[in-house]
Amino acid sequence: MAKQFDVVVIGAGPGGYIAAIRAAQLGMSVACIDAWSTGDGKPAPGGTCTNVGCIPSKALLQSSEHYEQATHHFAEHGIEIKGATLKLDTLLGRKNNVVKQNNDGILYLFKKNKVTFFHGMGSFAAQVDGGWSIKVSGASEEDLVARHVIVATGSSPRALPGAPFDEKQILSNDGALSIPEVPKKLGVIGAGVIGLELGSVWRRLGAEVTILEALPEFLLVADQQVAKEAQKAFAKQGLAIHTGVKINEVKTAARNVTISYNDAAGAEQKLVVDKLIVSIGRVPRTEGLGAEVVGLKLDERGFVAVDEDCRSNLPNVWAVGDVVRGPMLAHKAEEEGVAVAERIAGQHGHVNFGTIPSVIYTSPEIAWVGKTEQQLKTEGREYKAGSFPFLANGRARALGDTTGFAKILADAKTDEVLGVHIIGPMASELISEAVTIMEFRGAAEDIARICHAHPTLSEAVKEAALAVDKRALNF
Amino acid sequence: MAKQFDVVVIGAGPGGYIAAIRAAQLGMSVACIDAWSTGDGKPAPGGTCTNVGCIPSKALLQSSEHYEQATHHFAEHGIEIKGATLKLDTLLGRKNNVVKQNNDGILYLFKKNKVTFFHGMGSFAAQVDGGWSIKVSGASEEDLVARHVIVATGSSPRALPGAPFDEKQILSNDGALSIPEVPKKLGVIGAGVIGLELGSVWRRLGAEVTILEALPEFLLVADQQVAKEAQKAFAKQGLAIHTGVKINEVKTAARNVTISYNDAAGAEQKLVVDKLIVSIGRVPRTEGLGAEVVGLKLDERGFVAVDEDCRSNLPNVWAVGDVVRGPMLAHKAEEEGVAVAERIAGQHGHVNFGTIPSVIYTSPEIAWVGKTEQQLKTEGREYKAGSFPFLANGRARALGDTTGFAKILADAKTDEVLGVHIIGPMASELISEAVTIMEFRGAAEDIARICHAHPTLSEAVKEAALAVDKRALNF
Repeated sequence: MAKQFDVVVIGAGPGGYIAAIRAAQLGMSVACIDAWSTGDGKPAPGGTCTNVGCIPSKALLQSSEHYEQATHHFAEHGIEIKGATLKLDTLLGRKNNVVKQNNDGILYLFKKNKVTFFHGMGSFAAQVDGGWSIKVSGASEEDLVARHVIVATGSSPRALPGAPFDEKQILSNDGALSIPEVPKKLGVIGAGVIGLELGSVWRRLGAEVTILEALPEFLLVADQQVAKEAQKAFAKQGLAIHTGVKINEVKTAARNVTISYNDAAGAEQKLVVDKLIVSIGRVPRTEGLGAEVVGLKLDERGFVAVDEDCRSNLPNVWAVGDVVRGPMLAHKAEEEGVAVAERIAGQHGHVNFGTIPSVIYTSPEIAWVGKTEQQLKTEGREYKAGSFPFLANGRARALGDTTGFAKILADAKTDEVLGVHIIGPMASELISEAVTIMEFRGAAEDIARICHAHPTLSEAVKEAALAVDKRALNF
Repeated sequence: MAKQFDVVVIGAGPGGYIAAIRAAQLGMSVACIDAWSTGDGKPAPGGTCTNVGCIPSKALLQSSEHYEQATHHFAEHGIEIKGATLKLDTLLGRKNNVVKQNNDGILYLFKKNKVTFFHGMGSFAAQVDGGWSIKVSGASEEDLVARHVIVATGSSPRALPGAPFDEKQILSNDGALSIPEVPKKLGVIGAGVIGLELGSVWRRLGAEVTILEALPEFLLVADQQVAKEAQKAFAKQGLAIHTGVKINEVKTAARNVTISYNDAAGAEQKLVVDKLIVSIGRVPRTEGLGAEVVGLKLDERGFVAVDEDCRSNLPNVWAVGDVVRGPMLAHKAEEEGVAVAERIAGQHGHVNFGTIPSVIYTSPEIAWVGKTEQQLKTEGREYKAGSFPFLANGRARALGDTTGFAKILADAKTDEVLGVHIIGPMASELISEAVTIMEFRGAAEDIARICHAHPTLSEAVKEAALAVDKRALNF
């Protein structure tokens, strides 16, 4: 007989596993289905984020940051080393261990919270009495009946037409995290978060990196003042970034990849590289889900169609994370997962889409929340801007990492904080204060009047708030 | 004729220079007097913090952290180095440069804000028509008349009776920042912030460090759960800390220092070291101020006696920072400096003494704001506690730095956050979100419902907030 659950979650990425745990905490019987496997066939829950995204990329960023410090900055600290050599297999092995810790952590959390885990693909089979029949196929073979279903199947990398991923020469985020030796020349198509982060990793480890971007401006999604600062910093590091290019052809040969493209001026160019990372976006993953079997509606771009509360067109079928509209961010998926679990339990879960932070883990790091200056201009909203450079921040000087600035945008009349944009050391951590202020609909003056520990990088956020009122103290 | 100013600030440490700049921003004519000099007799504004405190210690912490990473942790990242040797003069030279950048920065800020700087000692000469006659002596010799005076003369290290600082063998924070070669054995008397930070620096650089503390428990000022975790971490690093000791005698010989003490069990012990740091507290600095000339009242411990608004017993004479009651912290001094400048301008400056964060820049870092668990118990306040270990945080795993935890204390009934205590990577930066929440008198549930970027260390703060309600998602 089919196993019955109050909630079945399809996918154990950040949206799925968090939804499953929260639903179980609220007293429901919960199953979570996930097909991802380790090399030796064991379950590897955590989705793209844990397996081939946020977590392994941050492990590589940390290792490559150490290598960069050792090879470029130790001398100024009085630390003399006689050559640093890279054992890439150890570096990649450490990354794999960090991933495994996270996989195992999720399996432990499932046990602790009494979530039943099934290792396999989950798909809709039929609508039945009491809910939905869900089939598990793969390592586990099961028929489940779910009163509620949460679809959290995530997303897949988008391939360039005519240049499918082989993960040997043409790499998605997956292959790009496991290149077995540092390429001499590395090409990246797409200067988004993934392209920039992975391009940075391999540049630090010694690759000559060229990034090609179709859009006419760099990092259009970020505040343009931040984007300019980032472009300047990356150029200084030796990351070649070409915007406004049109890719004509990608051709693989035995030992290299040739990219033919037109540059921004229209001239034909050829780039020959050892490996090519294609990071031109991600598409929702719904193949094998059986959406068509039960009539689960997808939108024109292939996302599961949901309302603001993550309800699909089918009763008691929800979807969260990358497979639905909105930014493809692990923490957005988590918030939706928690909110849906709470709604199923009759509570009033809520996600504030206006205060979801974005982070790019390059060096300098980039993080922001709320509106960019160009968005406010487009909206015709009157605003004040204040910024403060890390060059004038004592902690940044002590760290020896003074690139970038913090910038605050506030309503011209009410002083309410509308956006906070940080490029610089630890921007990823500094942004949490900004999100907090915006959740409370605080004013720039609130930040300016809150005591910030000295010497910290967070003082730059305070000074930016003071600068909104033209009274920065340290600049 | 004496030069007239609306405001004369005595001392250019964080309290003084910030007060001077804020007063000038508010339209007043301002002078700031400071005697600190560089080695070649040039002005070195910034006080203890910039010259022999926060800033140089953080520069050394960063350099020594790199050295520690290189010598102990690079192997796991696959970075092989053939021996790391330390050029201590380069390391100390970099620290001196960071200090000089900050000195010069303040001189630039004075120019920019039209604050007149006098290089010398400032002292009260008399009460005169229109305010106070202030004498500058030293590099500059001037007579000033001030409508308002702000005393910001700071503090000095307290010496151990019978063992005055010679800065060669018996070191204050000053000498401890400039030891010309790494001592084989280093003793530290006093396990407070300064002793722990500087003891950590020299341990990382290769010294065998022993810290002696008179108090029966370690780090009584911090939450005791944090203190225990810190003691465990420091012991693991090889920092020997003995509490409950009674120092009997300190004797210097040509090449070493012998400390005779009774240990916690009362047994007589001898410790022989190459150098000894004495960090048993600091005393307010009022010698040469001329307090007695004008009748400026000091309290029984030698602090300038002030009310909550930093008003002294004399009309239009104020005092801020280490020379008055309250924690001896640069950011507390800054807040007081701003508030006093605003009060002089007829505004309503305010300092919330309940939300001043404390930070100890060891590794792991320690930071907190609000009440400790032991304080709440003493007050008989009912509270809930939630904590989350960095061991379960993805970013910490990726960094390879999983010591410590975040802990939140909230009112048992209202859920208002009463204290936040963090020990772990970047605690100094994570605390700003906690201060922000407390300034808004937010609840633990507020933190729990705010979207935190993934993967960040700040997620540990969110999870600790969830743990207050016994619903941590990732532990």
